[in-house]
Amino acid sequence: MKFLPAKLERKFRRLKKHSRSSLTRKLDVMHESARKKVIEENCDAYKNQKQSEYECRKRPTKFPGGTRETFLSEGSFHQAVGRVLLVAEFFAMMPVKGVTAKHPGDLSFSWRNVRTCFCLVFIASSLANFGLSLFKVLNNPISFNSVKPIIFRGSVLLVLIVALRLAQQWPTLMMYWHEVEQGLPQYPSQVGKGQMGHTIRMVMLVGMMLSFAEHLLSMISAIHYARYCNSTSDPIKNYFLRTNDEIFYVTSYSTALALWGKFQNVYSTFIWNYMDMFVMIISIGLAAKFRQLNNDLRNFKGMHMAPSYWSERRIQYRNICVLCDKMDDAISLITMVSFSNNLYFICVQLLRSLNTMPSVAHAVYFYFSLIFLIGRTLAVSLYSASVHDESRLTLRYLRCVPKDSWCPEVKRFSEEVINDEVALSGMKFFHLTRKLVLSVAGTIVTYELVLIQFHEDNDLWDCNQSYYS
Amino acid sequence: MKFLPAKLERKFRRLKKHSRSSLTRKLDVMHESARKKVIEENCDAYKNQKQSEYECRKRPTKFPGGTRETFLSEGSFHQAVGRVLLVAEFFAMMPVKGVTAKHPGDLSFSWRNVRTCFCLVFIASSLANFGLSLFKVLNNPISFNSVKPIIFRGSVLLVLIVALRLAQQWPTLMMYWHEVEQGLPQYPSQVGKGQMGHTIRMVMLVGMMLSFAEHLLSMISAIHYARYCNSTSDPIKNYFLRTNDEIFYVTSYSTALALWGKFQNVYSTFIWNYMDMFVMIISIGLAAKFRQLNNDLRNFKGMHMAPSYWSERRIQYRNICVLCDKMDDAISLITMVSFSNNLYFICVQLLRSLNTMPSVAHAVYFYFSLIFLIGRTLAVSLYSASVHDESRLTLRYLRCVPKDSWCPEVKRFSEEVINDEVALSGMKFFHLTRKLVLSVAGTIVTYELVLIQFHEDNDLWDCNQSYYS
Amino acid sequence: MKFLPAKLERKFRRLKKHSRSSLTRKLDVMHESARKKVIEENCDAYKNQKQSEYECRKRPTKFPGGTRETFLSEGSFHQAVGRVLLVAEFFAMMPVKGVTAKHPGDLSFSWRNVRTCFCLVFIASSLANFGLSLFKVLNNPISFNSVKPIIFRGSVLLVLIVALRLAQQWPTLMMYWHEVEQGLPQYPSQVGKGQMGHTIRMVMLVGMMLSFAEHLLSMISAIHYARYCNSTSDPIKNYFLRTNDEIFYVTSYSTALALWGKFQNVYSTFIWNYMDMFVMIISIGLAAKFRQLNNDLRNFKGMHMAPSYWSERRIQYRNICVLCDKMDDAISLITMVSFSNNLYFICVQLLRSLNTMPSVAHAVYFYFSLIFLIGRTLAVSLYSASVHDESRLTLRYLRCVPKDSWCPEVKRFSEEVINDEVALSGMKFFHLTRKLVLSVAGTIVTYELVLIQFHEDNDLWDCNQSYYS
Amino acid sequence: MKFLPAKLERKFRRLKKHSRSSLTRKLDVMHESARKKVIEENCDAYKNQKQSEYECRKRPTKFPGGTRETFLSEGSFHQAVGRVLLVAEFFAMMPVKGVTAKHPGDLSFSWRNVRTCFCLVFIASSLANFGLSLFKVLNNPISFNSVKPIIFRGSVLLVLIVALRLAQQWPTLMMYWHEVEQGLPQYPSQVGKGQMGHTIRMVMLVGMMLSFAEHLLSMISAIHYARYCNSTSDPIKNYFLRTNDEIFYVTSYSTALALWGKFQNVYSTFIWNYMDMFVMIISIGLAAKFRQLNNDLRNFKGMHMAPSYWSERRIQYRNICVLCDKMDDAISLITMVSFSNNLYFICVQLLRSLNTMPSVAHAVYFYFSLIFLIGRTLAVSLYSASVHDESRLTLRYLRCVPKDSWCPEVKRFSEEVINDEVALSGMKFFHLTRKLVLSVAGTIVTYELVLIQFHEDNDLWDCNQSYYS
Repeated sequence: MKFLPAKLERKFRRLKKHSRSSLTRKLDVMHESARKKVIEENCDAYKNQKQSEYECRKRPTKFPGGTRETFLSEGSFHQAVGRVLLVAEFFAMMPVKGVTAKHPGDLSFSWRNVRTCFCLVFIASSLANFGLSLFKVLNNPISFNSVKPIIFRGSVLLVLIVALRLAQQWPTLMMYWHEVEQGLPQYPSQVGKGQMGHTIRMVMLVGMMLSFAEHLLSMISAIHYARYCNSTSDPIKNYFLRTNDEIFYVTSYSTALALWGKFQNVYSTFIWNYMDMFVMIISIGLAAKFRQLNNDLRNFKGMHMAPSYWSERRIQYRNICVLCDKMDDAISLITMVSFSNNLYFICVQLLRSLNTMPSVAHAVYFYFSLIFLIGRTLAVSLYSASVHDESRLTLRYLRCVPKDSWCPEVKRFSEEVINDEVALSGMKFFHLTRKLVLSVAGTIVTYELVLIQFHEDNDLWDCNQSYYS
Repeated sequence: MKFLPAKLERKFRRLKKHSRSSLTRKLDVMHESARKKVIEENCDAYKNQKQSEYECRKRPTKFPGGTRETFLSEGSFHQAVGRVLLVAEFFAMMPVKGVTAKHPGDLSFSWRNVRTCFCLVFIASSLANFGLSLFKVLNNPISFNSVKPIIFRGSVLLVLIVALRLAQQWPTLMMYWHEVEQGLPQYPSQVGKGQMGHTIRMVMLVGMMLSFAEHLLSMISAIHYARYCNSTSDPIKNYFLRTNDEIFYVTSYSTALALWGKFQNVYSTFIWNYMDMFVMIISIGLAAKFRQLNNDLRNFKGMHMAPSYWSERRIQYRNICVLCDKMDDAISLITMVSFSNNLYFICVQLLRSLNTMPSVAHAVYFYFSLIFLIGRTLAVSLYSASVHDESRLTLRYLRCVPKDSWCPEVKRFSEEVINDEVALSGMKFFHLTRKLVLSVAGTIVTYELVLIQFHEDNDLWDCNQSYYS
Repeated sequence: MKFLPAKLERKFRRLKKHSRSSLTRKLDVMHESARKKVIEENCDAYKNQKQSEYECRKRPTKFPGGTRETFLSEGSFHQAVGRVLLVAEFFAMMPVKGVTAKHPGDLSFSWRNVRTCFCLVFIASSLANFGLSLFKVLNNPISFNSVKPIIFRGSVLLVLIVALRLAQQWPTLMMYWHEVEQGLPQYPSQVGKGQMGHTIRMVMLVGMMLSFAEHLLSMISAIHYARYCNSTSDPIKNYFLRTNDEIFYVTSYSTALALWGKFQNVYSTFIWNYMDMFVMIISIGLAAKFRQLNNDLRNFKGMHMAPSYWSERRIQYRNICVLCDKMDDAISLITMVSFSNNLYFICVQLLRSLNTMPSVAHAVYFYFSLIFLIGRTLAVSLYSASVHDESRLTLRYLRCVPKDSWCPEVKRFSEEVINDEVALSGMKFFHLTRKLVLSVAGTIVTYELVLIQFHEDNDLWDCNQSYYS
Repeated sequence: MKFLPAKLERKFRRLKKHSRSSLTRKLDVMHESARKKVIEENCDAYKNQKQSEYECRKRPTKFPGGTRETFLSEGSFHQAVGRVLLVAEFFAMMPVKGVTAKHPGDLSFSWRNVRTCFCLVFIASSLANFGLSLFKVLNNPISFNSVKPIIFRGSVLLVLIVALRLAQQWPTLMMYWHEVEQGLPQYPSQVGKGQMGHTIRMVMLVGMMLSFAEHLLSMISAIHYARYCNSTSDPIKNYFLRTNDEIFYVTSYSTALALWGKFQNVYSTFIWNYMDMFVMIISIGLAAKFRQLNNDLRNFKGMHMAPSYWSERRIQYRNICVLCDKMDDAISLITMVSFSNNLYFICVQLLRSLNTMPSVAHAVYFYFSLIFLIGRTLAVSLYSASVHDESRLTLRYLRCVPKDSWCPEVKRFSEEVINDEVALSGMKFFHLTRKLVLSVAGTIVTYELVLIQFHEDNDLWDCNQSYYS
């Protein structure tokens, strides 16, 4: 039906109909007329409205030159993520210049920038702290529980280095992201534009607050603990001796070292929480881009669209896939560290949960910390799985393409959606989907069951053990 | 062969044949003639008969206006599920008005309805009961076995709330279901129409009876047990002290509280059984719709049908898929709770099965209860897997479409059947298929093996433990 | 290129070529000429020869009427499996009449036949034996090891009943199989025709011999054991008291009962071995049919075949798939029992393997039996996985279809091969593929590792335990 | 658009455009012009350059006759692997003649060659050594740890035999590889040509050096150990008594036997390391071939290429797949042995890691050996997974084919890439992909967790145990 002019085509179709059996013809006629009636009556007005909207919305994409300012204030990922990165920079991560600038073109990375220097100094400081922890752990019998400080500080150090490398790529990534965003169908309303930014800000806020609350509780319980394991008469000294035991294992107590240890602890805790939030934020951004495309497809669901419409959408879908791939390459090491860390810490905490708590303060801190940990892990898993879910949702609208609009482009589009596995991954070893959440949960439950079955009180709360995280 | 009028087409085909090698031509002729002969001799009469049936059956769909009464009495899901929901309403679930009405349009939900009020009161009462259980459990050492009452009462409470939310959506869901049903090819006979309703009623009846039998046995064994752990001289008081230990842990014995506890127990047990049956019933309904479509495809299996036939079937298939998706969104939390509950209770019962029974009454109750639990879990799994199985069966008929009828519509249909995973799910974390049943069974067996290997008699039947479920 | 007569087509192609860029045209010309040269020089002679063979081989399929005798003696599954079923009938299974007849049309099942009566009597006898075993096991503490006799006798009983039901369907199944076989491309040589039958006979022979050897060893070790656990002075009585402990647990010793027990043991052991061999034989038959089709495709690999050739092959492939499905429905319960039995017995034997053997005779018997069990399980797994492997192999030849012969029929064929999972299954819960073998092996190894790690000598060889299988 | 000459086509397209709604037409015009502009401005120059390159590069493939010498020195697998095989021959493996020859046609295998004889003699010697180990192990209680020598020597023996069989097939395989290589698009630069060879040499070098370092450390720790378990006064005798305990278990000490044992140990260790490296090297070779194809596709990414281009690439892709399949058939037993060996040895070493080390020399050797083992396993896994990764990468370029160039050949190509699972395998039981690495790692971690949880010091370092590997 694509190879002959419309006039001829219509004629041929008439001829073809005559040549078929009368039964089939009648059925066809019935179908055709029923279908036409429905479409004409219900859809025409709506369609006209939609198509005029479509035309309107296409214009800014065509002439974005002069309207750059207005355009940029409309739901771009770069803008939404600006303040989040600013917070990260304060905590010595991601030293990129211009994160709050309006255009991603203003982003830049330089080794001589003060942020980068601060970051490098902090990496060196963390390395020293990691070395001290390692020394203490290796000089004591190794167990599943005792390697906790190494794993904690080791992964923080790893994330710091990966973040530094990511900072170098960040300007390029954001420029590509910006290009993809400009090619996408625009948000129909101002509400839609702000939604992604709002979600990102809320996730960051809630995450930071809970993390702060946990740190406070941890301090309270540590003070209690320090009083209980009374090594000296000075309560502040007792507290620092406990929380920075890896430092005072090799050297005698000094206030400067204690403060350095405290600073190191606060920063490490933040970074340890931030890596989860960072994965969430990237996932929210990617899922939002797929949702933007899906919203447009939903608006034209079941309508007769030109092949060029589908071709355009397919290329946009492809662009987001490529974006997703690039982001995954850039952050997959962080994702890997974040996931394995969460898995390890949940197992350790569950192991501890079987022991009796030394005090109420400990119990409160412990259960708050455990629930926060599980909640955060679930949130990371579900937010990152949403990228995959949104990318599959496109198929739902392609399934509703009417018979007459079914063209090779739609076919190619739907085959690409079916066969590509679009998802963030942990270094390509696993893809972050909802099925993964189940299998991870299953693993934890199995481990916990085995633990419960053969439990003997190991007394993990004794005074000589490394306490702080 | 679709681009030229029939006359030209035939001519070209003749020309094409001449241009091929004589060998290939001869082979083709042989094939053609053989195929034609078979079709003409065997199928023509059958086909004519079928097609006239098809025409007849199409009529009610075309003019359903006046025959609404007769049409509605013919195998709709709304009618089949009516009495089942009535029973649920008696047990304070799903407070929808008009469940036994003939048309789903008469369904309605109102917060001021007496059913809704009863439901809300019962939720409040359950909440109180749950709180008491939680209090008792937290004041005793926690183990895999001791959390049983919380999990039991907690999931009942959760299901009650989800059912309330579902009741609000029920009228809309049933209307959509009704629309999908009207679009489907009609049942050829009165027997087919009644089958789904019959199955649903039988499942409900058998389920209720077994559940009732289990409750009776549980009462008998509890009376035995109460006599054995003789705390007071009053046997009735002893019984209530045992079965409602969570109430009398905080307060002293009173008959009113005992009766409230008994009422709560009976209702909770029903709801705990009902959630499994509800998932089964929805699954039976959805599978029946796929079967209805498959039956039509089977009737025309291997015949030359017009593309419009396939297009119509494809859209019907799509509609059932969408229906399946909507139902899954509505009930997936119930499915999740039902599955995890069953898994947990089987593990707990298997753990108990290793201990020696205090009396014969206990042994009878225990093994009946265990077999009922495993049987019910298997039934839920297999009925819900049948939705997926039936949806895949469509492919079998599409594989038999003859060469000449193979058109883009059939291709699109078969691709959609292949690539869509149509199944109920537990919040999209897992899909209910037969493979899941195996992996669940495998998990239970592994757990049991580990248990047996390292078993020591934990004496779970001591008098101080929470007894009832 | 399919819509216009050859003359016009050639003209258009010439025109098209002129309209393209000269570069592309030159490349095309180069390709075309190179391809043509290769095909013309190397393939023509071969092709002619093959095609004349093809013509020749098609004739018997066209006129099979008169040549029925000669045709039937050529590699049909019915003939290959005849003697195997005869052996089964001797052991009271599969009471079908006419298994050694030349044509499957002579097969029949009747309830009044002497075979059926023998079979029913044996089922009743097995039921009695099963009841005695059950009684003994329930009156002793239950463990993973002690339920062995129930599982052994229970599964033999189940297989007997399934085999009886299968016997009723056998004539229909064999007729369908015969039809599919007649539609397939014929074997090119006499060697190919006999291969399937030869493999089946060898599998049966080796299986029976090893099973006989194992039974002899079991008797020797039982005699040793009986002497060691000297309960009476009569060695024969001692032997029977040990091997039929389930009988003499309820009644006192009598020679008639001892002989009945022995007879029951011998028959049960055979049936227990036979169910594995039966699954193997069905798998060999199905895989052979796929291989027959693949051999034909390999002969014409890379050649230009008419669409009718592909259409024919696709329908043949479909027929074998349907046959595979029907056989799977008929035997999947046997497959399920066979697999779970093997898994259970391997686990039990591995558990026993950790204990010290009471004598050398025991050690020899035990290790022979264990190796035989593992070998048989592997053989069943691999033979049944070969059905799936052969069905996938078809794809290899479809990948080599040259560009010009690539038509909708080949496309449809390859899509069906890709998307259909053709394999025997255990009641659709699992499909028998090579991946399954790995996961089963992994499960056993994990179990064994856990066993070894926490092993304490359970002394499973004490005198009071049920000995025989 | 393929069925009519260009002139007519253009006319029809114009007519078709008029017959559509003006809106759609306008949109299309906009799209067309935008697309054309971009292509014309940016791509034309690049395209012309690329296509002339393409023409140039095609020439050597067309006339390779006279330029054989120069052609052969350019990145063929045969040349890259030459020295690697030479080293293997020195260690009595793969006795093929002509491995360093310039052309694979010079390869040959003969039973009478001195290499083959050496190889056969060494197999006999290994068999004797294996027999002695087996004898010692069977005469002691069997445990997970004590079977280590059998598994070590048994797998070395198995690999030797497989390598001998592989040597017979090697000339044919290399000829096929050579043919595939000649058909592939040539490397654009001299750097690309040498890359594969360089990687292979580096892997071999690093592997050999680490293996040598590990052997030295093992000797040092064995000397320490021998001194500690002082059985005789002669330190050299002590050393040999320890490292060849399987020999001196049956016979008294003699220097000749001790030297034979040492020789056997050194060679076995090399072969045990070499099998991993061999799998890596084959993987690197296969991945490089896919990369070569992908590089060509990347050069023409997004451009309008003739169908013949895609057809050619598809056939090349198919050829590499077939090559991959042939190599997999030839080496899959080695892969299987290599993987299961690594898994077993990691588990054994982790089990040992829980015990306290007798000396610092032991600790250094032990941890070096463990890290080397894990690193080697990871390297084998990742290199062999890269074959699969590279084969999937092709899809990325096919996704970017522009709308107008989308032809049946591209479709067929992309479907083949999607549906074929191209990867090395362990006897088809598992495919070597990144997902496998995760599941293997998960298994090891689970095993380790269970170990740690229930650990009691088993004192695996006692003096009477078999020491050497």
